[in-house]
Amino acid sequence: MDSVWFDGDAVGFVDQRGLPRTVARERATSVDDVVDAIRTLAVRGAPAIGIFGAYGVALAAQLHDGDAFRAAVARIREARPTAVNLAWAVDRVLARTDGAYLAEAEAIHAEQRDIDARIGAHAIALFPDAGNVLTHCNTGPLATGGEGTALGTFVAAHRAGKALHVYVDETRPLLQGARLTMFELREAGVPCTLIPDSAAAITRQRKHVAAVVVGAVRIARNGDTANKIGTYAVAIVAAHHGIPFYVAAPRSTFDFSLATGAEIPIEERGPDEVRIAADDPVYNPAFDVTPGRLIAGIITEYGVLRPPYDDSIADLATRPRLLPADFVSTGH
Amino acid sequence: MDSVWFDGDAVGFVDQRGLPRTVARERATSVDDVVDAIRTLAVRGAPAIGIFGAYGVALAAQLHDGDAFRAAVARIREARPTAVNLAWAVDRVLARTDGAYLAEAEAIHAEQRDIDARIGAHAIALFPDAGNVLTHCNTGPLATGGEGTALGTFVAAHRAGKALHVYVDETRPLLQGARLTMFELREAGVPCTLIPDSAAAITRQRKHVAAVVVGAVRIARNGDTANKIGTYAVAIVAAHHGIPFYVAAPRSTFDFSLATGAEIPIEERGPDEVRIAADDPVYNPAFDVTPGRLIAGIITEYGVLRPPYDDSIADLATRPRLLPADFVSTGH
Repeated sequence: MDSVWFDGDAVGFVDQRGLPRTVARERATSVDDVVDAIRTLAVRGAPAIGIFGAYGVALAAQLHDGDAFRAAVARIREARPTAVNLAWAVDRVLARTDGAYLAEAEAIHAEQRDIDARIGAHAIALFPDAGNVLTHCNTGPLATGGEGTALGTFVAAHRAGKALHVYVDETRPLLQGARLTMFELREAGVPCTLIPDSAAAITRQRKHVAAVVVGAVRIARNGDTANKIGTYAVAIVAAHHGIPFYVAAPRSTFDFSLATGAEIPIEERGPDEVRIAADDPVYNPAFDVTPGRLIAGIITEYGVLRPPYDDSIADLATRPRLLPADFVSTGH
Repeated sequence: MDSVWFDGDAVGFVDQRGLPRTVARERATSVDDVVDAIRTLAVRGAPAIGIFGAYGVALAAQLHDGDAFRAAVARIREARPTAVNLAWAVDRVLARTDGAYLAEAEAIHAEQRDIDARIGAHAIALFPDAGNVLTHCNTGPLATGGEGTALGTFVAAHRAGKALHVYVDETRPLLQGARLTMFELREAGVPCTLIPDSAAAITRQRKHVAAVVVGAVRIARNGDTANKIGTYAVAIVAAHHGIPFYVAAPRSTFDFSLATGAEIPIEERGPDEVRIAADDPVYNPAFDVTPGRLIAGIITEYGVLRPPYDDSIADLATRPRLLPADFVSTGH
């Protein structure tokens, strides 16, 4: 399943707002359409937004030139100011002095697919031939434009013939697990069961979970990992039951400037996502930080990093950027 | 705040269905009204249903006699077949051969208030003079008809002058924490903050939580405790952070016939409480079992039981039933 694609004279996308009830494949045929899709969160997920914006520049070049083209590109680039991937991807496409914008957008998309595929390939050996695994939040193709990070590891193992069953935390307060991850796993044909976040402990106790894999939004040099709220509890409960807890994330998620997770600021979201009574005080942190010592391995496009992370992440920082052509398929 | 009461020619109750948005104090003036309030969950919580049914028998005696009275009582007794407290309370009231049904219903209510008050009094010394505490699900006056069990411990400490701030898990899937516990704490004037269940780990890490107190639905002889789904994860996360985890429950919650929690069946509820897509498989256990080894103490009306629970719970089983007159107020 592709979440974004180029369609000759339009940028195609799955409108994520109606999921899982409605799977609407839409076509953005104007710069207005592209900007609207980003602004309204019809397209979401940092890498997916970048790829969509890159295709948007290619579309704008078909429709406009001169000042009109430059104005269109500026509007796309600013459609969601906090999405760093969007500005990065737009700038990279524009840097093509030969004007081959569509080729550059396709290269960005191909690289994302390649990174996700490498992560998936490196993960396969971590799973048993058959068994239960568990994940939290949404890390699939809707968000990345490739096969996904944590979710991509399950899909890769499934395609390699491993009989995995994925337990999916619903992921309050925004329910990305219930809305998006269950949809993606069903689309990929991977058996899955939805659970309330609060049922994760009994699930690990009674359902013999073999491994937990989650994504990441930021990783410090000691392996401390910021991810969706609830991840830290998932890691503690996994450790309590002796279940390996893995993070799946590309090199771009590592922040080599951070010594530990204590330096990662925790954004707090609004109270109305949680409360029922209008005046109730609410603590609604968007992320938490899982200490590196609770993480059995970090699955990257370069392989699985193992503790001590001070060493393995320092080594990662020195590695050259991989290009798609370097990738040798592992047959999955 | 009373959740149920007798009102001269009616049984009064807070209609819990509208909470927290609407606080409707209603009057059941007929046997039909009493049965409807129980059936529709306007009155819920095992002890509260028992007290409400007992008052219902007193009301029925005002309105009916002979066969009509016996038929009315049978209807009340069967209004919610799984609520063992209801049949127990109705039978106890009917056993009054002098026909003083209202006096017996009031005695049942007074005993529940007394048990809750004793639990609260015994808990006060467990809390610091000021600090944060955390709870899961709903254990307050709406459910018990007294001050509540776990929630009652916070109210008792608050009245004793301790500056507690209560973090309240929203408690998916039915959100009893967000709907009921926040309401009860605000009614009692205890400072409180609502959190998603998934934020409990970061809250314990960053908010310096001094103690966790939860209720129980069934306790085995080794201290293994069945309670609302999510309790087990709360206990694991508390242990990970070195925070004492307490259970507050009356003697009637102990099942002395069970050696361990492995003998407690875990009821599974329907998938539609959790899923968004109509065909998603769901695992939705109503309860989980927290091992006794994770529990620092069990707060009962007889005092705080400590490990080893095989000994302290065996001792509890030999204790005579307390009567309200035995209770010496500890001044809270």
